[in-house]
Amino acid sequence: MRDAIAELEKMGQAAKAAARKLAILSSRVKDQALLNIADGLLAKEEAILAANKRDCDAAKGEGMDAAMLDRLLLTPGRLRDAAEGVRTITSFPDPLGESFDMRTLPNGLRLEKRRVPIGVVGAIYESRPNVTVDISALCLKSGNAVILRGGREALHSNAALVEVIQEGCRQAGVPEGAVQYVPSTERELVNHMLKMDKAINLIIPRGGEEFVKFITENATMPVIASGAGICHTYVDRMADIDKAVAIAYNAKVQRPTVCNALDALLVHAEIAERCLPPIAQEWAKAGVEMHCDERSLNILEAVGDPSLKIRPAIAEDWGKEFLALVAAIKVVDSLDEALDHIDRYSSKHSDAIVTEDYAAAMRFLAEVDSAVVYVNASTRFTDGGQFGLGGEVGISTQKLHARGPLGLKELTTYKWTVMGNGQVRP
Amino acid sequence: MRDAIAELEKMGQAAKAAARKLAILSSRVKDQALLNIADGLLAKEEAILAANKRDCDAAKGEGMDAAMLDRLLLTPGRLRDAAEGVRTITSFPDPLGESFDMRTLPNGLRLEKRRVPIGVVGAIYESRPNVTVDISALCLKSGNAVILRGGREALHSNAALVEVIQEGCRQAGVPEGAVQYVPSTERELVNHMLKMDKAINLIIPRGGEEFVKFITENATMPVIASGAGICHTYVDRMADIDKAVAIAYNAKVQRPTVCNALDALLVHAEIAERCLPPIAQEWAKAGVEMHCDERSLNILEAVGDPSLKIRPAIAEDWGKEFLALVAAIKVVDSLDEALDHIDRYSSKHSDAIVTEDYAAAMRFLAEVDSAVVYVNASTRFTDGGQFGLGGEVGISTQKLHARGPLGLKELTTYKWTVMGNGQVRP
Repeated sequence: MRDAIAELEKMGQAAKAAARKLAILSSRVKDQALLNIADGLLAKEEAILAANKRDCDAAKGEGMDAAMLDRLLLTPGRLRDAAEGVRTITSFPDPLGESFDMRTLPNGLRLEKRRVPIGVVGAIYESRPNVTVDISALCLKSGNAVILRGGREALHSNAALVEVIQEGCRQAGVPEGAVQYVPSTERELVNHMLKMDKAINLIIPRGGEEFVKFITENATMPVIASGAGICHTYVDRMADIDKAVAIAYNAKVQRPTVCNALDALLVHAEIAERCLPPIAQEWAKAGVEMHCDERSLNILEAVGDPSLKIRPAIAEDWGKEFLALVAAIKVVDSLDEALDHIDRYSSKHSDAIVTEDYAAAMRFLAEVDSAVVYVNASTRFTDGGQFGLGGEVGISTQKLHARGPLGLKELTTYKWTVMGNGQVRP
Repeated sequence: MRDAIAELEKMGQAAKAAARKLAILSSRVKDQALLNIADGLLAKEEAILAANKRDCDAAKGEGMDAAMLDRLLLTPGRLRDAAEGVRTITSFPDPLGESFDMRTLPNGLRLEKRRVPIGVVGAIYESRPNVTVDISALCLKSGNAVILRGGREALHSNAALVEVIQEGCRQAGVPEGAVQYVPSTERELVNHMLKMDKAINLIIPRGGEEFVKFITENATMPVIASGAGICHTYVDRMADIDKAVAIAYNAKVQRPTVCNALDALLVHAEIAERCLPPIAQEWAKAGVEMHCDERSLNILEAVGDPSLKIRPAIAEDWGKEFLALVAAIKVVDSLDEALDHIDRYSSKHSDAIVTEDYAAAMRFLAEVDSAVVYVNASTRFTDGGQFGLGGEVGISTQKLHARGPLGLKELTTYKWTVMGNGQVRP
């Protein structure tokens, strides 16, 4: 273990040294490395899939459940998608090219903020091996060195992927140490990594709530955590009912196990009797279980459709991330009541209003304090790829530095540069 | 104490409620409140100075030293400056007016990032009562509610100032709870404040290193800390010697007790014999003590001027924030050596190069990883007021969210707004 920690410390030093060079590396070299990686993922398909099979067989042997196994599995199609994702990132402008807030002071000093990399990113994540490729590619493009620490179950898959990534970097002339992988799964190494604030500038944890909480509480450097997504959709009295049905269905059903899926549906009392039955009937087709407040329960019981899986809501249903085909439903008397409910229970991830009323839409956008606020769209769009950010390394629910999907730009910071010709402060 | 804690909790709730309203308050109301405060500071001069006299008398009685007493003291001139500072902020555009990163996706969704307040700011600071006015004004303008906790020694001064601030807010129609002051100096209240992460979104500590460290380690919410300023000025081989002398003098002497003052002077070997003597002679006039590496010591001893306070540097002189008329001096053989030294010892606050060589200037700007990087100017300019940011609540040496002076914009974050017409995710 002492050897492994010494090795990790060495990685930290190598990453720091690489970060200095990466910060000024030309976009051409970085993009060439990404293209090499995309090609390499396809060329080394056989080796990668063989390594992944070892992981999957071992996981099966240990009784991993089908959903987790599916997350772990790499297929030729999934590898192709990963390669395509990497290739897409080359089409994005280099985020480091940007200067902003330029000003010339009365004394002639020329100030600007230059976009620069954060430095060394530590990524600690679980299961899905694609994450290894996504995070490496985004860090590389944004000029950050990265130390990856993937999950135990994906060890061989990740090792094979990292080999391709490092080879692609090497051939393009990216400095050694830009992408490194911790080849051990000892928990103690994570603990040590969290203390390496001299070498690592930012930790990005990806995984379950407990895991992320542990990282946040124990890291000595800043953490950008992807928190829980407790997402609301509010159907306003002036909603278009067809849109409401389509949006509620998509937000709850299209992929219920993820953070941007709908958890609670709020419905204005004036429209509840018209819109709740069709929403509930669509949801019922997908097997959605509905936890209803008294008024919505009355309305849905009156439908008399035995296929509706309805039951009374309990207090804990409000502010709960279900991650399953379950939704809480509440009837509210006003936009204000909806805003208050969201203010109280939202995890500040993604919340939506469905309305044709201009003033209600504007108020909702202005007053809901979430990372992403929607009018007439499904909360499922909260995603770096969907937003056109070139993928994401996570979705922030904190308020500082970055909110929502963390793409290329969110992996950068800035420095002020000041150009003078001898100015001194009076 | 239990009462005081309950009171603090109530303040947190009031601040949270106020923050929701402040986020959508019109610029006109906020600016009117600022004008009221500026007027109030002048109108209530007598009461404020009387309260300040109580604090100063008590401090004198407890044997506070002259420098600290001077920091605590309010005078008619200082009050006028504070009022003028508040008035100036009204001339800045409302930072919340900005949207950026707008894009329309192929599916028609219209995305933008809207600048929004952070929410509730907790400011914990020591001595100078002007800070109470500065922070309140900047938070108000940027739409944040603030809970102020000033130092024990300024209790009466702060109470008098806060009365003016709250009255100015009330008359303009700013919601109650926007600016609150913790009227007790029990240490336990600070400890409790640091646990109020449900109510307070950001803590800004201002004070000595130990104090800031305590806050950073114990706060459960994000902290933006003003770290130590270990600032370098590098005189390149192609420097204009007059500029080098003026800049080194200003950076070290103009106000040696602050974070953006010079700590270490690096000089290229080829120019050292020409530029070190005049720099040292100017510094000597101001009483600067010089801790010299071997080569610079040889050069300055050869000058034979007994007024130069020179002595050999020790290892601890590199990477030390002197906060006094002391500077470390080192001769380097190349720009690369200077960059390496700065990378190793700078606290990433403010570092400068003096050069007429374009390529050296560009490399320095690109490669020095500090919050503010200068060419041919004094590091003393690192200041929100000097940068034209409308003042500052501190100077960040961390890399996330904001670097350098924290002005109006740095007291904001953003949210994504997404306007659709029924889009669902395929």
